[in-house]
Amino acid sequence: MSIDYQRILDEIVEETAFLKGKGKIADYIPELAKVVPGQFGIYLRMMDGTAYHTGDAFTRFSIQSISKVFALSLAVSLLGEKVWQRVGVEPSGTAFNSLLQLEYEKGIPRNPFINAGALVVVDMLISELSHPKEDLMEYIRMLAGKQEIYINERVADSEKQFGYRNAAVANLLKDFGNINNRVEEVLDLYYDMCSIDMNCEELSQSFRIFANHGKVPGTDKPILTPSQTKRQNALMQSCGFYDESGEFTFTVGLPGKSGVGGGIVALFPEKFTIAVWSPLLNEKGNSIMGMKALELFTTKSGLSIF
Amino acid sequence: MSIDYQRILDEIVEETAFLKGKGKIADYIPELAKVVPGQFGIYLRMMDGTAYHTGDAFTRFSIQSISKVFALSLAVSLLGEKVWQRVGVEPSGTAFNSLLQLEYEKGIPRNPFINAGALVVVDMLISELSHPKEDLMEYIRMLAGKQEIYINERVADSEKQFGYRNAAVANLLKDFGNINNRVEEVLDLYYDMCSIDMNCEELSQSFRIFANHGKVPGTDKPILTPSQTKRQNALMQSCGFYDESGEFTFTVGLPGKSGVGGGIVALFPEKFTIAVWSPLLNEKGNSIMGMKALELFTTKSGLSIF
Amino acid sequence: MSIDYQRILDEIVEETAFLKGKGKIADYIPELAKVVPGQFGIYLRMMDGTAYHTGDAFTRFSIQSISKVFALSLAVSLLGEKVWQRVGVEPSGTAFNSLLQLEYEKGIPRNPFINAGALVVVDMLISELSHPKEDLMEYIRMLAGKQEIYINERVADSEKQFGYRNAAVANLLKDFGNINNRVEEVLDLYYDMCSIDMNCEELSQSFRIFANHGKVPGTDKPILTPSQTKRQNALMQSCGFYDESGEFTFTVGLPGKSGVGGGIVALFPEKFTIAVWSPLLNEKGNSIMGMKALELFTTKSGLSIF
Amino acid sequence: MSIDYQRILDEIVEETAFLKGKGKIADYIPELAKVVPGQFGIYLRMMDGTAYHTGDAFTRFSIQSISKVFALSLAVSLLGEKVWQRVGVEPSGTAFNSLLQLEYEKGIPRNPFINAGALVVVDMLISELSHPKEDLMEYIRMLAGKQEIYINERVADSEKQFGYRNAAVANLLKDFGNINNRVEEVLDLYYDMCSIDMNCEELSQSFRIFANHGKVPGTDKPILTPSQTKRQNALMQSCGFYDESGEFTFTVGLPGKSGVGGGIVALFPEKFTIAVWSPLLNEKGNSIMGMKALELFTTKSGLSIF
Repeated sequence: MSIDYQRILDEIVEETAFLKGKGKIADYIPELAKVVPGQFGIYLRMMDGTAYHTGDAFTRFSIQSISKVFALSLAVSLLGEKVWQRVGVEPSGTAFNSLLQLEYEKGIPRNPFINAGALVVVDMLISELSHPKEDLMEYIRMLAGKQEIYINERVADSEKQFGYRNAAVANLLKDFGNINNRVEEVLDLYYDMCSIDMNCEELSQSFRIFANHGKVPGTDKPILTPSQTKRQNALMQSCGFYDESGEFTFTVGLPGKSGVGGGIVALFPEKFTIAVWSPLLNEKGNSIMGMKALELFTTKSGLSIF
Repeated sequence: MSIDYQRILDEIVEETAFLKGKGKIADYIPELAKVVPGQFGIYLRMMDGTAYHTGDAFTRFSIQSISKVFALSLAVSLLGEKVWQRVGVEPSGTAFNSLLQLEYEKGIPRNPFINAGALVVVDMLISELSHPKEDLMEYIRMLAGKQEIYINERVADSEKQFGYRNAAVANLLKDFGNINNRVEEVLDLYYDMCSIDMNCEELSQSFRIFANHGKVPGTDKPILTPSQTKRQNALMQSCGFYDESGEFTFTVGLPGKSGVGGGIVALFPEKFTIAVWSPLLNEKGNSIMGMKALELFTTKSGLSIF
Repeated sequence: MSIDYQRILDEIVEETAFLKGKGKIADYIPELAKVVPGQFGIYLRMMDGTAYHTGDAFTRFSIQSISKVFALSLAVSLLGEKVWQRVGVEPSGTAFNSLLQLEYEKGIPRNPFINAGALVVVDMLISELSHPKEDLMEYIRMLAGKQEIYINERVADSEKQFGYRNAAVANLLKDFGNINNRVEEVLDLYYDMCSIDMNCEELSQSFRIFANHGKVPGTDKPILTPSQTKRQNALMQSCGFYDESGEFTFTVGLPGKSGVGGGIVALFPEKFTIAVWSPLLNEKGNSIMGMKALELFTTKSGLSIF
Repeated sequence: MSIDYQRILDEIVEETAFLKGKGKIADYIPELAKVVPGQFGIYLRMMDGTAYHTGDAFTRFSIQSISKVFALSLAVSLLGEKVWQRVGVEPSGTAFNSLLQLEYEKGIPRNPFINAGALVVVDMLISELSHPKEDLMEYIRMLAGKQEIYINERVADSEKQFGYRNAAVANLLKDFGNINNRVEEVLDLYYDMCSIDMNCEELSQSFRIFANHGKVPGTDKPILTPSQTKRQNALMQSCGFYDESGEFTFTVGLPGKSGVGGGIVALFPEKFTIAVWSPLLNEKGNSIMGMKALELFTTKSGLSIF
């Protein structure tokens, strides 16, 4: 049962066309609001090395929350199980930037993919790394197999200037004793990593270790153990899409992570990674065409993990 | 890489022995509290028909919330997509019998596996079936491939007598207009299905359709479509373990469903179904030895979906 | 500084005329929805015995939640301080029928004037009285100085038939162990007392003990001690208007109690009681013209307790 | 019925002696934790000018949240009704520094006496005053009839250094658009005013305008209108004691305001003001001996507003 993947991608482009123009660009910071809305790209990379793409698969965009996956992966490789003393593994059930649960649960964020959890993970990185920003960038470049991955400084500055909500979250974490470094330092690195620009091709490459039991394909170097990799994927499944994680699991059936830049990366262990991008978001902050594209992909290919 | 499954089961028995006596039997109704705590059974059934078991795999126990999977499956086969107009697909993030979200979200339960959601599903069954109780039992017997599946009437009576919390939930749903039949009728069928007695062998059999794209193995009869089956499994992954669903996904990495009788059924599509049972529960209402047994199983076998 | 109260009442009628037709009749039960909306009455009764009235001050209406004051007063006279072991004295901060707090606070209602609290008070009365319904009616008639006070049976039946929300609350209380009698029995007496019909003249009379340190004026019989009376008034101030209690305190500045029948009774200790009635409600469930009338009354007379 | 106030104060000292050593000093900042716990003072000032005192009535302490009354009073005198567009008048029903309601209610604090509300009031003052800190101090000195009222700079510095929770609240308000000035500027003035040192004698003097329809006694200068004064008192009644406001209303029956420095000021319009101080707090943050002293005072004197 050989599948014509290119044809599936082409069909997806056709069948999602009716969604063009639907949704809203992330406009909470001026820099993000400048993106051209109509763009749409897909990059599918099989674990055997073959690859398929369509549309704007080589245009870079702000990866935003997708960066939380890299930060967590690095923290787990540095700290192992100790990560889970300071952050949970349960879906939040509420909006991604909610302060409610944090208050009820005494400063232990529900999971590492809500903002609060990612801030705690970033705090761990600052404590563990001698040059946190440079070391994290190095790590991401290694996963992407490419040196030319950069932070978009204008986006980072814009985030820092208007990030009152995240400053509220970080101060609350500090009050609960779950931030060890200075609040400003944690916020800075958090915004830096969210402001990285990557394209679908690069993202599909950088997620291959998660489909490969923790090794960068073509190397023997284990970045994560198989068990750590399983857990990273499980977390993407449970918590990768803010309070729409259940919906993504239900309709798509792959572990993945979205960002408010409009990107989504998903994967099937041992089979493939796939990155989609389209900047217009639904009210939960996930790319409308991206969600639909992935739903069509698993339906057409039959390649859901469930 | 042939795996010695029997040896894995035997190792699990050894390695979970330290947990014996830990936890608490469900004691909210007198009948459930009568179970002998030390019991422990596993039944593993591969999709190729081979099977392995250990311990009390043939002792029947109260399936409790596991029955919600059968009810949902039957409702989806009767009503298709219409089910999702009255119940959501997101994890709840709070205790399984919480009234909080129901009130905020205007009577639409978060998912069909919290009590509120299951009550709505049961209400659908009452509206659709001519003999709801008999028809549901017939459906479960068909999935289990066995006529001798019964409701434990003493348990059912006990539940009905002390079920003030569920009566609160059902009345609230009725107030929001999301129960169409009489509150008492809905509660009665809900308690009846929760009070079914089954053993690990029977449960592992009855879940095979979910590992077989919706067909009872050995038949050509599609009970669910492949897409409906995928979604049913996705929901078990997201929402199958109350507010410990993330933890189960994280440590075990299989879709499954637990009940306060101490049973858990999990599955790997196209590969196997597995049922475990041990009555002592953690504070979230899930079997302590059952959770550990399944974690050890996927770690030892490498057979997690992630 | 003698005040021309009749003129003040007349001015209020003029100055509230612009509100005629604004708001919504309580329509959650068909019987209540039948009331003629345009009605408006005020009855002011000074502690020296003089009285003033205007409009429909002698037309009876459903007193609804105002009855909770009578129930509490009777419970306190029977049980004293023990009442406060099962119900709190803090404003709820949320809608009057909310289940949220009840769940967080383990079945101890915030105060005796939210539905949950009143149900617990009614449960106390059932335990303490030999003929709860008759004895409560007798008590109210004694306070009103009049035998002809009755339950509107059509309203009571209608409440019982559609009261799913209160059934949810009562079952939740029962689950938490804070209802000792049968749920149905508690709901029945609760609905009976809410369905009493009284007019402004009768209500202003029946609240006189609260402005008279606990004695029915003209008698020597202390129904409540001065301290119990102070507390009853304090509770009306803090909690008498659902989640609009702060607003009423802020704009009117008198202790009082409202009902969804459109009635409000307020009082100034040692000075006066005042009852207003107009059936059209704001979204918090309080009479729009009644609230405005009382605000104008304290502003014009200078007679706020603050 | 002349009352021997001095004897009442003396009795209170005796009858609260059993509470000595009960409770906990506010220790969230090191400077506050340095206070000597056993201190206890009362200053009662009748509106006719007579005064009574006992214990440490002339020892200064950190007025903390009592300062919120001064800030609100000044804001109302500057902005009138416009204040209520940005802050509510309802009790919060939750802990005084809760972020929950703020998030649900979109950045409009429940009332001006929770921290969030006071921060918004302080933001108003910064926008309206040319020298906010100096002008606010001038206002308080005018009310106290005394120039020697100062900010305790060590306390203020300590608050600024450890105030992560308030920084979280202020950033959240800023995110919702309900802070117009810089977050740091607002926090600084907030901490400055909380760090003012005053004694019972000074506090009882400075609250006299609220018992005098808005005029400083002995002057003709109306600081607030009678209606504004009524509302200020009403707010103290509803919201002056964090989530123990109902309890204070219930047991004491006077409008008042507490601070975590252990001070409480209360008043009876046209009759008296009273300030008590004892540093050991209950878990709600209110002075244990102070609450008891005021309860005894109104019980013994019969002088509750209810």
